[in-house]
Formats: sequence, structure tokens, C-alpha cells
Amino acid sequence: MLALVWNGTEARVTEHAEPRSEAGVALVRVELAGVCNTDLELVKGYMGFRGVLGHEFVGTVVEGPAPWPGKRVVGEINFACGKCEWCKRGLGRHCPQRRVMGILRADGAFAELVAVPASNLHEVPASVPSDAAVFTEPLAAAFEILEQVKLEPGCKATVLGDGKLGLLVAQVLQRAGAEVLAVGKHADKLANLERRGIAVVSRDQWDRGAADLVVEATGTPEGFAAAVAATKPRGTLVLKSTVAESTRLDLAPLVINEITVVGSRCGPFEPALQALAAEEVDVRPVISERVPLRDADEALRRAAVPGRLKVLIEVRDS
Amino acid sequence: MLALVWNGTEARVTEHAEPRSEAGVALVRVELAGVCNTDLELVKGYMGFRGVLGHEFVGTVVEGPAPWPGKRVVGEINFACGKCEWCKRGLGRHCPQRRVMGILRADGAFAELVAVPASNLHEVPASVPSDAAVFTEPLAAAFEILEQVKLEPGCKATVLGDGKLGLLVAQVLQRAGAEVLAVGKHADKLANLERRGIAVVSRDQWDRGAADLVVEATGTPEGFAAAVAATKPRGTLVLKSTVAESTRLDLAPLVINEITVVGSRCGPFEPALQALAAEEVDVRPVISERVPLRDADEALRRAAVPGRLKVLIEVRDS
Repeated sequence: MLALVWNGTEARVTEHAEPRSEAGVALVRVELAGVCNTDLELVKGYMGFRGVLGHEFVGTVVEGPAPWPGKRVVGEINFACGKCEWCKRGLGRHCPQRRVMGILRADGAFAELVAVPASNLHEVPASVPSDAAVFTEPLAAAFEILEQVKLEPGCKATVLGDGKLGLLVAQVLQRAGAEVLAVGKHADKLANLERRGIAVVSRDQWDRGAADLVVEATGTPEGFAAAVAATKPRGTLVLKSTVAESTRLDLAPLVINEITVVGSRCGPFEPALQALAAEEVDVRPVISERVPLRDADEALRRAAVPGRLKVLIEVRDS
Repeated sequence: MLALVWNGTEARVTEHAEPRSEAGVALVRVELAGVCNTDLELVKGYMGFRGVLGHEFVGTVVEGPAPWPGKRVVGEINFACGKCEWCKRGLGRHCPQRRVMGILRADGAFAELVAVPASNLHEVPASVPSDAAVFTEPLAAAFEILEQVKLEPGCKATVLGDGKLGLLVAQVLQRAGAEVLAVGKHADKLANLERRGIAVVSRDQWDRGAADLVVEATGTPEGFAAAVAATKPRGTLVLKSTVAESTRLDLAPLVINEITVVGSRCGPFEPALQALAAEEVDVRPVISERVPLRDADEALRRAAVPGRLKVLIEVRDS
């Protein structure tokens, strides 16, 4: 099959062995996949990953245990052992034995076929088009914030970054009742949020007025210090960006202002699918372009262009 | 009066104007004061402070509103406005207008007299000797952790650092029901904790086994990375060290393991005084030596020697 493979030196579209069928594992024919900033970090060396990239996808099960064959699905990306303390607590996302699709010891979805444990699958409601369903994984990551932080009534939230994740986070927080201010660099992206009733400000004009909750979703090493400065004393800063580089940081303001920093990664798929089905979150404006799988290496390069939003890889028929 | 004054270049024992009496402010004749790591950071440039150093003290009120004159007291160090949103919520420690004794726009306690708003004073119970009472402020900082973090039953807590604050934090967490492991460099200091039933391990032999709660109290820029590595996924890292330098840090593990970092500063005096009165926390082994006020500059130098614990400055009769 065709796949985008990262070999540690280059990401290349190439013929790659099809995943084998195994008990409890479904083979999914990928329809659409999304390029995430994590993919861009992986090809800078993050996690030391080698293999087929990609962890945001929607597709149809072609082989696997009942009742999955024939269903249109999305899949959680952490492949957990199912037996350890973490898995028993429902936190397989932190299973120490886990493999992670396209990130850690498991091939990903920038390919014609991807192998996914059946227990990781979620059926996509018929009303959700595939180009919305492909956002389930990043939208779940936005919903993760609500799992980790209790939003107080009237909570003032600032979202830093008008990239792919920032645009989703701003909508999720607004829907959860927060008074959201989105800070970004791109007038067109902010305008999309503004149309949904979210206050927006250009980074250059932003006064850093202190918020109860700040979400750092800039994807840059510099985002953290700005986020700290924007968080009220005793406030909460949710850290969403994973960047490969380490950064010079001054942690004293965290102590002085007793700020709580919450690292936040993957989230629950069900609320994300429900929000998509109810059209409560608008993902279409987040799509920048669509590229066929045979040009997936080019898709990565385009996704890395500053200001570019979601690049979708069209797998079926490519 | 005699005082240890930091002028931005050197810390010098010198004659200094006595504090003026003002409405609502008590003048306290200092008996004993303690050198804190923050003092050592201040003379490296932290906070840009200038003036009389010192914020840990016990003394007797010589002038001020009733009922304070004649009482032996300790004093909270944040001098708040009393009117703002923060003060109304009982969080004067975060009042944006605050001055902070010996740290920010307010002279400190390494002096014969120190001015303290009467509302900041706490009477010392007769049973608490002054060389225990002088630890009220740092012990309150240890109790602050219990204000910020809910200890789950059976919580495994690791305290990094066997310095002044680490030794207090380990005792406070043990008393609150945590299963504490203290990690340090000094066999004699760890032995003191061991005698109180606290598990200890030398930093060199520590396996970094993951804890639910990790308290970073090393006072070093390197402590943070070690603390992150020692925190379980979804665990809590309490950050106690304020260091003047910024440090190269990799924040990705916070995101991947969804760690919560809680900056933690000053705490409530009452539980600290109660614990001292009940002899539930043993502060005596934390005292390294006593130096008269006239040699307070030397006291700072000695406190900066690696491994040195609390240096007390004896003010009365010096």
C-alpha cells in the first residue's frame, strides 16, 4: 500500500507493507487524514518516532471483529494494554505500555490502511460528514480541557494561538460557558471566531489583561511566557503545545502568582463526536487545503507554512 | 537603629532610620529573624529589591494599636491594600498593590525594629519558644500546599530537597496523611526526618519512582526537570523554589503526562502556629547556627554555603 513514512531523515510517500490482521484489531481503509503540528514536530525529531505518520483520520473498517466491518469510524490514538492500573481507571491514554498511532511504536494513518484496536474505534454518526469527522481527535484534545479544569461560572478564558487547535479550543470553551478572548495573528482566522460571538484580538494589540484560564495553543516555544503573563494570580494555564525544543523559561512568576499549569494532551472522543453531530463546533473554516496521499510529503511541507491551518490528506482514490 | 541593608550592590550592616509609627501599623522589636533562600536570591538581583532584608521574624510589639503592644508576635509578610477584589476574597497575599516585607517596597526584619500592619500580626502561644516561632513563616509556606492540593488517601508524595523548606514540607505532608519520601543530599538532614518515620533516600540512590505528588524544594534551577520526571502521569508537582535565573526547560513531558504544576508561595500562619504549639513539626534540627545582627552580612554568606540550614539572626542584645 502507499504510505507516508518517516525514516528519521526524510518523510517520503512510498510502498509500505500492509498492516496484518490480528485478534481484536480492525483494519481501517483511510478516507481522510489530518496533518497535526505533532506530525511536524515528529519530523524534527520529537519522540524519536520512525514509521507511518498520521493520527487524525476517518475511514471504513474493512476487516476486524464484529460489529465493526463496514462501519465508518474514527479511532483513539493511544493503544493501551487494557490491564494495568491506568487502563482499569479508564486512563488508557496514560498506560505506560501504550503505543500511540503515528507517534510511538505504531504505524499511523497517512496510508491506505491503518490497524487500530477495535476498542479504540468510535462509529461516526451518519449526519457528520467525513471532513468534519476527521477533526474528532483534535477536537477531543480541546474537550480534554473540560475534563481537567472546572470552569467557574463567568470564567474569563484567553486562548493564545489562532492555529488549528486554538480555533477548536476557543469554540469548546465558549460552548462550555466561558467568556472567551481569542488572541491570534491572522485576521481571517479570528474573524471566523468573531462570527460565532467570540471576542478576538490581534496579538499586537492585546493588553495581556489577566484571565482566570489561559490556554497556550500557539505551538511555539515563546507561547509559555506570554501565557504565564496573561494568567491571573491563582489562575490556571492549560498547556497544549508540544514542541521538540527546550526553551529558556523563568518559573518564578508561577510561584509568585501561584499559577496552576495543567499539561493537556489527548481527550475523550464521545463529546467531540456529539459536538460535531450537533454542529456546535464549526471545523470547516479550519481546513486550509486537501492534498492526495501520493503528495503527502508535500502536505507536510504545506502544513509547516506559518499561518496554514489544517491540511487534509485525501487517501481514498489517491 | 542597626539593620542589614541591601543597596543593590552589597548587603551591609549599618545605621538605618527607624520605621515611623503610623495608624494601623505596629512597630515590632525583633528578637530573632531567619535567613531564607529568597534573601539569597534578592542579593543576586531577584525582584530588584532595595532596603532592609528579612521577612521571617519573631518579636515584641513596642508601639501600635490595641491590643498589640507588649505581645510576642510573628507577622504575615504581604502588606495588602485590604480593599481590592483579592483582599475581599481573603487572598491579600495576591493583592496587586501589596508590599512585601523585605522583598518588595517594604523594609524587612533584619533590624532592631520592623513596621508591620497590625492586621498581619499573630500572637505567639506562650508554649512556643521564639526559636520555633521564627519558623512560622516558612512553615506556613509548607502548609500552603495543603490549601492548594487535595491529598488523596494513601497519596504517595516525594519531597525533593532536604534544605530548610524541604524538611518542613516533608513533615507537614506526613502529618496530613501522605506517604512521604524525602530525597536529599545530606545524610544528617535526612536522618532527622527518618527519626520521625519519614522514608528518605539519597539523591544518588533515588530511582525517581513516580509519585502522585512531588514538591520541588531544591532551590535550584535543575530541580524542576527532576521533579517532572518523578511525577506520575496526571500527578501534581508543587513548585516551591523561586530562583533568580531562568533555565532551559523541556515542557513536553508536562503535556504528554498531563502533569499539573502548582506554583506555591506564602501560606496561612494559623495552622503553622498550631502545629508548632502542638509540637507536631520539629523545627529545631533545621537550625544551623545563630549570628548576632551586627554580623548579619556574614549570616547571609554562611546561609549561602551549600548544605547550610537555617541561619538565625539574633537581634535583641546584639
